[in-house]
Amino acid sequence: MDNHTSFNPRETAGKIITCNAAVVRGPKQPFVLERIQVDPPKKMEVRIKILYTSICHTDLSCWKGENEAQRAFPRILGHEAVGVVESVGEGVTDVKEGDHVIPIFNGECGDCIYCQKGTTNLCGKFRVNPLKSVMANDGKCRFSSKDGEPIYHFLNTSTFTEYSVLDSACVVKIDPKSPLKKMSLLSCGVSTGVGAAWKAADVQAGSSVAVFGLGTLGLAAAEGARARGASKIIGVDINPDKFDKGRTIGITDFVNPKDSSKPVHEGNEWWRRRLQLRMRRKLGILREAFLSTHDGWGKTVLVGIYPSPKLLPIHPMELFDGRTITGTIFGDVKGKTQLPDLARDCLQGVVNLDGFITHELPFHKINEAFGLLTDGKALRCLLHL
Amino acid sequence: MDNHTSFNPRETAGKIITCNAAVVRGPKQPFVLERIQVDPPKKMEVRIKILYTSICHTDLSCWKGENEAQRAFPRILGHEAVGVVESVGEGVTDVKEGDHVIPIFNGECGDCIYCQKGTTNLCGKFRVNPLKSVMANDGKCRFSSKDGEPIYHFLNTSTFTEYSVLDSACVVKIDPKSPLKKMSLLSCGVSTGVGAAWKAADVQAGSSVAVFGLGTLGLAAAEGARARGASKIIGVDINPDKFDKGRTIGITDFVNPKDSSKPVHEGNEWWRRRLQLRMRRKLGILREAFLSTHDGWGKTVLVGIYPSPKLLPIHPMELFDGRTITGTIFGDVKGKTQLPDLARDCLQGVVNLDGFITHELPFHKINEAFGLLTDGKALRCLLHL
Ligand SMILES: NC(=O)c1ccc[n+]([C@@H]2O[C@H](COP(=O)([O-])OP(=O)(O)OC[C@H]3O[C@@H](n4cnc5c(N)ncnc54)[C@H](O)[C@@H]3O)[C@@H](O)[C@H]2O)c1
Ligand SMILES: NC(=O)c1ccc[n+]([C@@H]2O[C@H](COP(=O)([O-])OP(=O)(O)OC[C@H]3O[C@@H](n4cnc5c(N)ncnc54)[C@H](O)[C@@H]3O)[C@@H](O)[C@H]2O)c1
Ligand SMILES: [Zn+2]
Ligand SMILES: [Zn+2]
Ligand SMILES: [Zn+2]
Ligand SMILES: [Zn+2]
Repeated sequence: MDNHTSFNPRETAGKIITCNAAVVRGPKQPFVLERIQVDPPKKMEVRIKILYTSICHTDLSCWKGENEAQRAFPRILGHEAVGVVESVGEGVTDVKEGDHVIPIFNGECGDCIYCQKGTTNLCGKFRVNPLKSVMANDGKCRFSSKDGEPIYHFLNTSTFTEYSVLDSACVVKIDPKSPLKKMSLLSCGVSTGVGAAWKAADVQAGSSVAVFGLGTLGLAAAEGARARGASKIIGVDINPDKFDKGRTIGITDFVNPKDSSKPVHEGNEWWRRRLQLRMRRKLGILREAFLSTHDGWGKTVLVGIYPSPKLLPIHPMELFDGRTITGTIFGDVKGKTQLPDLARDCLQGVVNLDGFITHELPFHKINEAFGLLTDGKALRCLLHL
Repeated sequence: MDNHTSFNPRETAGKIITCNAAVVRGPKQPFVLERIQVDPPKKMEVRIKILYTSICHTDLSCWKGENEAQRAFPRILGHEAVGVVESVGEGVTDVKEGDHVIPIFNGECGDCIYCQKGTTNLCGKFRVNPLKSVMANDGKCRFSSKDGEPIYHFLNTSTFTEYSVLDSACVVKIDPKSPLKKMSLLSCGVSTGVGAAWKAADVQAGSSVAVFGLGTLGLAAAEGARARGASKIIGVDINPDKFDKGRTIGITDFVNPKDSSKPVHEGNEWWRRRLQLRMRRKLGILREAFLSTHDGWGKTVLVGIYPSPKLLPIHPMELFDGRTITGTIFGDVKGKTQLPDLARDCLQGVVNLDGFITHELPFHKINEAFGLLTDGKALRCLLHL
């Protein structure tokens, strides 16, 4: 096991920590490694030392500033990571100094009417909120530059920093014996993909599944479908480089929409798909995906983020054909109460986590890591802090 | 019990029957009572004598010719009725001469992969198809004018005629002791409304339900929700005359969107609805309806027909708030295998069928009956043949 707990919490607890963070100062601006100050955690907050972090497409969207309403700079992005608790704020009882944890961008307070319901993972207080950039407790930032300028939070997490402060609802304790690097994948990408297949789409043995977009999320969804016994898994991507990786995890058929003059759903081969998981962002392909499912019972599960203001390209009457379309956040997994089970399944090999980390780089090479994702070269590039 | 089986099937079986029908010769043209000829039923078809029929809003939409693709004239409309089997074609075994039956516009063949699935009521062969205007067997009409001109079928049924020919998949046998007039309601409106509440929305005891549009379908959905123990039932209609009837079946709150300057979903009172059933056709109100459900688990069930080409007024990202929207045909009830249970529940008083038939008229007053529906004066006007 990695040994990264080299800080001494007794020296830092309750104090401001000065450390390195990759700060973005405007849309599409390069990350700059800066010395920042990290406040101690307040009531029901946790300060963690980030050990590994990786880059998800959602970081990329925010970095590009695609949605104006979500812009807030300077900011610390990042939400997929694994870390160790440095100190906890007043009232936090479920994690303590030294615990290995993963941050979850879609928190679970455990108390609200949403958390009490079995059927949703959208906590009333700490669900993912792309517009939120400060802590819920006091509307302030726990990060500041060396000049005292506040630096905004991102997606309940902010992991491109050596230390981060999160609400305890957004921190999940993991088995200390788990391999840390792989656990980082469960922080967002793999959990969301597998959850989309298992929970949101509820893939049944023998069914046919199409996955649109074969990044980490799509491949994890395919892996989840395979684990559930899907008999046919079709991978759709405009980047054929993704097919090799897809083949190794059991995708049986591939379609590159760029190679075909017909819309995807018009091929015979396509018309009778049972179910598909939609990982990508172009709107036209959403309609393709929807229509490629089987009428009567086909399910489309939306995972990708659509920054465009365009509405769903589906006619109300098309809902009468028995196809459904739903969206999922974090694969419908409740972070605190259900993620530990998913982690156990992964460690026991039900879901194979090999192959998702395609690159590893030191933290200061974060701009290079971003380039790998933008260019479609990496699935997850793990940054070592 | 009514005694309407006054024809003698031994005299008519196998022969052409000449009888009266209300024929429409073009969009918005008045119904003309004509002598028509009705062919004997072919293989797996059934000829029935219609005893009572009523008018549903779907007849009105077709009569107006709102959707050009669905125009086919001259035509015999009507799909809500009760009748008695006059004769059956080759291979029909589940009904026989003299059986009391109701026509179903959304058939169930029992054999296809759709019918074999428990989860859909959309038969692969005889599901509702607004574009279909001839018999599936041979692509021909069983109706003709006295000059031999073919007269088109409508919605698998065509009930504005003394005799009609249907596929046996679209005919359901009912208990001969059932009150015939009320059974006519189960042929479309009440089954669809109650099924929307019970099956499509799966209303739970204690939940809040909003119903948009308080015609027969909306009121039947409200009645279904009441029977399931919904604690709050909100009725929305632009015609306040509908509120009196709504009150008698247990609707607890009323909203007239015309009285309010704010969109329906913006009232505090409205924001936290669990579930609503959408019976009406304007698109803007569909968005209202969707947003008025509770985030996390609110369900919108679409029942009304949208002739406009406009797409769903919902942004893909809005699916991430845990609200779902689905459409239902015939309340997700499988006509042959599940309607008899619904009929039994109604007869035992679980669902109260009183009050839905607001008017009764002789068949030749069909134009008057149409006016009553258009003017929002009638729920169902029962025509006596
Ligand atoms: N709902 C959630 O909880 C959640 C969580 C994490 C990420 N996401 C979103 O999921 C999406 C995927 O994330 P990722 O990290 O796997 O991204 P990624 O960049 O690794 O992969 C995206 C893949 O889609 C392919 N693609 C692009 N355009 C396409 C098209 N028109 N047709 C088919 N394929 C196309 C790309 O070639 C690439 O392989 C992003 O939109 C991300 O924001 C959602
Ligand atoms: N999905 C199915 O299987 C199925 C079956 C039968 C009927 N339908 C459809 O269901 C709908 C209702 O049928 P019905 O026979 O009960 O109709 P109806 O004409 O009896 O009732 C419609 C009601 O909606 C109200 N209304 C109109 N515009 C409104 C608005 N903007 N906001 C709120 N209320 C409004 C009217 O005042 C009226 O009370 C129709 O569109 C019909 O075609 C669907
Ligand atoms: Zn992510
Ligand atoms: Zn909560
Ligand atoms: Zn109807
Ligand atoms: Zn069938």
